Amino acid sequence: MNEHGDLYVVSAPSGAGKRTVLEGVMVDDDRLVLAISATTRAPRPHEVDGVDYYFLDREEFLRRVEKDAFAEWADVHGSLYGTLREELQRRRATGKDVVLELDVEGMLNVRDMYPEAVTLFIMPPSLEVLEARLRGRGTETEDDIARRLSNARAEMDAFYQFDYNVVNDDLAVAIADVKAIVRAQRCRGRRHRNPLRPGR
Amino acid sequence: MNEHGDLYVVSAPSGAGKRTVLEGVMVDDDRLVLAISATTRAPRPHEVDGVDYYFLDREEFLRRVEKDAFAEWADVHGSLYGTLREELQRRRATGKDVVLELDVEGMLNVRDMYPEAVTLFIMPPSLEVLEARLRGRGTETEDDIARRLSNARAEMDAFYQFDYNVVNDDLAVAIADVKAIVRAQRCRGRRHRNPLRPGR
Repeated sequence: MNEHGDLYVVSAPSGAGKRTVLEGVMVDDDRLVLAISATTRAPRPHEVDGVDYYFLDREEFLRRVEKDAFAEWADVHGSLYGTLREELQRRRATGKDVVLELDVEGMLNVRDMYPEAVTLFIMPPSLEVLEARLRGRGTETEDDIARRLSNARAEMDAFYQFDYNVVNDDLAVAIADVKAIVRAQRCRGRRHRNPLRPGR
Repeated sequence: MNEHGDLYVVSAPSGAGKRTVLEGVMVDDDRLVLAISATTRAPRPHEVDGVDYYFLDREEFLRRVEKDAFAEWADVHGSLYGTLREELQRRRATGKDVVLELDVEGMLNVRDMYPEAVTLFIMPPSLEVLEARLRGRGTETEDDIARRLSNARAEMDAFYQFDYNVVNDDLAVAIADVKAIVRAQRCRGRRHRNPLRPGR
């Protein structure tokens, strides 16, 4: 097999259930893997370098930024997070389809560098459902919820920039939608050679 | 719903099992319909105008060709066959996804006119399997088989021009592949409006 895995970028406003949907898709698809991010934040207990994250100190991270080693990176509350191009290359070269979870800006940056990237936006069915989900977590203050809803509204405006929009109303339906997108992508013409002309 | 159905063009060398695959997909998907072709050949017993075909006399057919009423048309052994643009428009306007079964040239013509068309090529897994299937029909002479195999070889060379290639080795897998393509297509971004901004 000389095939090259696909690259997916998945975005969603918080509360849309992106991680739950992705876990439901990946649980029985071992060709689909999450890319491991690099970060400057300190490892938490039980986090393993090269498994959970690539842990880099700030100087090393910025050195790689200058060397154009990142497909995208961002400063999140003072810590730097990013996706190393080498990580994508290495995983895709083994035939794995690699998934990046990014915000809309990250998606746009990755797509600039990898125009073949397949972009998915997972959407809540309504603002009311999104709000109910955020409250249901029971972990966020009213201020947090108001801020997240405001961010979500702004992020939702980018939905039309994605190749696919998956509405997460019924979780099983959303998982089946993403599975169909991945399966369809694997039938994309460029991935096949002519079986009647093995030499080509 | 103000949505517009998708347009599919499905091609395959003869013996690839295109019709069997499509029937397996359409049997439990009433949003997917075959376009009804127009033809100048005489109706066979039990064929109904407007159901099996639109039966037109040659003069009427050619009049419509001149009026640019066809998405594609071709002369097949002296009879004219074609797809009326109005047929596609009317079915798609009701939200149906419309399927055209065409040869490679027909696909190219339709895609020129409808760049949004989604094109599928159903392929046999190998030349040996294709030959075995043609022989298995028991209805064709050696000359027929040789001619069909030669045509198939030539048609296979166009596979890379299609959006999707579905290999029909295991019928159930091929049906599931096409279903996934149709399902994924229904998640295409342009089909959705922002549920958080109903007015847009």
